[in-house]
Amino acid sequence: MPETPITPSVRQRRVEADLVRTVLASFDNTPDPRLRELTQALVRHVHAFIREVRLTEGEWQQAIDFLTATGHITTDRRQEFVLLSDVLGASMQTINVNNEAYADATEATVFGPFFVEKSPEIPRGGDLAGGAPGEPCWVEGTVTDTDGNPVSGARLEVWEADADGFYDVQYDDDRTAGRAHLFTDEDGTFAFWGLTPVPYPIPHDGPVGALLAKTGRSPMRASHLHFLATAPGLRTLVTHIFVEGDQLLGSDAVFGVKESLVKRFEPQPPGIPAPDGRDLDGRTWSRARFDIVLAPEAVTATGADHG
Amino acid sequence: MPETPITPSVRQRRVEADLVRTVLASFDNTPDPRLRELTQALVRHVHAFIREVRLTEGEWQQAIDFLTATGHITTDRRQEFVLLSDVLGASMQTINVNNEAYADATEATVFGPFFVEKSPEIPRGGDLAGGAPGEPCWVEGTVTDTDGNPVSGARLEVWEADADGFYDVQYDDDRTAGRAHLFTDEDGTFAFWGLTPVPYPIPHDGPVGALLAKTGRSPMRASHLHFLATAPGLRTLVTHIFVEGDQLLGSDAVFGVKESLVKRFEPQPPGIPAPDGRDLDGRTWSRARFDIVLAPEAVTATGADHG
Repeated sequence: MPETPITPSVRQRRVEADLVRTVLASFDNTPDPRLRELTQALVRHVHAFIREVRLTEGEWQQAIDFLTATGHITTDRRQEFVLLSDVLGASMQTINVNNEAYADATEATVFGPFFVEKSPEIPRGGDLAGGAPGEPCWVEGTVTDTDGNPVSGARLEVWEADADGFYDVQYDDDRTAGRAHLFTDEDGTFAFWGLTPVPYPIPHDGPVGALLAKTGRSPMRASHLHFLATAPGLRTLVTHIFVEGDQLLGSDAVFGVKESLVKRFEPQPPGIPAPDGRDLDGRTWSRARFDIVLAPEAVTATGADHG
Repeated sequence: MPETPITPSVRQRRVEADLVRTVLASFDNTPDPRLRELTQALVRHVHAFIREVRLTEGEWQQAIDFLTATGHITTDRRQEFVLLSDVLGASMQTINVNNEAYADATEATVFGPFFVEKSPEIPRGGDLAGGAPGEPCWVEGTVTDTDGNPVSGARLEVWEADADGFYDVQYDDDRTAGRAHLFTDEDGTFAFWGLTPVPYPIPHDGPVGALLAKTGRSPMRASHLHFLATAPGLRTLVTHIFVEGDQLLGSDAVFGVKESLVKRFEPQPPGIPAPDGRDLDGRTWSRARFDIVLAPEAVTATGADHG
């Protein structure tokens, strides 16, 4: 709330409302009805924001400077606008709007900026680490549809940060590590070696990091492992699993945590034999289970099927 | 309006509203109360927009791509974010909010991206063209306060596009043309030679131009001459004057036109002697009058002084 309540005069309110009407009308002839809807809704909300907060000319200039800096730091490898959307919860809200819960289908969460096409394929029990440092983690589960039928041949893309909190694409050496894809077996099951997820900060040396610092927010993400699951006839699922007991579950910088996605990553003391007989060289490891349920493809964000 | 009304389920609406609350709460510890107010209002409006239009993931990606392209075309000489703000009416609304009408004080309008510090000074009757092509235009007027007292020594910055529709900074050769500053005389009057304003498009070879094209909007600005008027103890005025009869007055790309700022630019056939005896070499010219009234400095955007 403003320190001093601001009450524009009737005449002033009329001037401001007239401008909103004029700007809205300027988009009336947009040929594509969806684009017309989007631009006019944008105009309504942008103007409502400016009028509500009584945006000063100096603040407007700061906003222009912030967007300019955000644009200038953005490259093929660094997407500061996605980070901005993430820390405002806009990415997660878009995911929500497009992935309405359906029966017991697994919930979706943010995609994040670190997915890469054409990851290496690994067989059942393969290791996605690709040399990335970290504690080994055995992940197993099944993919089923919402009627409980196993889904064979479902494609799972899995990616995660290494023990230092970085994805491969954040290094300058073109490495591929901490990412792979695999397919479920005939019975819908899958298993692979990854790394026990660790917390890490989103890149915070740019304008978005400065915004987080000024607003007393942490750039840390709760520990997680990314999944993208696709299978013919079923709704594509983009999600993470999070680590039970992580102190950051309640303050994830990008608001990605959903209770149903928090899983137990059971610590395994040194010497416990690996499920697939792998020689872990006396190291600790962990194991987690993630059973994935995919909604039918026909389920859309409209909620028409399940009001 | 959407083609198909979308009615999210009660459960879905709860998920979305919960996220908004969580994101708002993440800004609760912002030390600066104004920044807290701004960020939380931004979050409310961004989320309201996404939920209202049921933004798709593809549209979200298009928005990210649009902002990225806008950032990448922006340089010291080209400010595409300002253009974006302008064509959405956000710049004009910010001007409105901060320049509430006061008595008969001259109305403000958009600043635009083409002002430059340190323009050349010209004496009374001097020419701001600096070699820029265009029809000469004699502009005269007075600066007074809202009690009708003449303001001597008021500083007027004046800038405009040339006959080809370009400001000096849009050329690559570092020219200074079509801009100058001057001061009012003892009796508050001023006079100078400029160029008869012509319509021109805002730069429309970038993402903002593409948006205008897709939404069936013209990039043309109504013909105008920019003023920035400053005087001690009086509210700074940023405004334009527009040309009576211009076909574009009703469709200015940046929504800058206010009726009170439309002035008669009287065409002068060749041979009519110039007011200051200047030899116009048989050319046509025009003349316009602009009497500027400045509000007291103490008048703020709150409207507290004049409800």
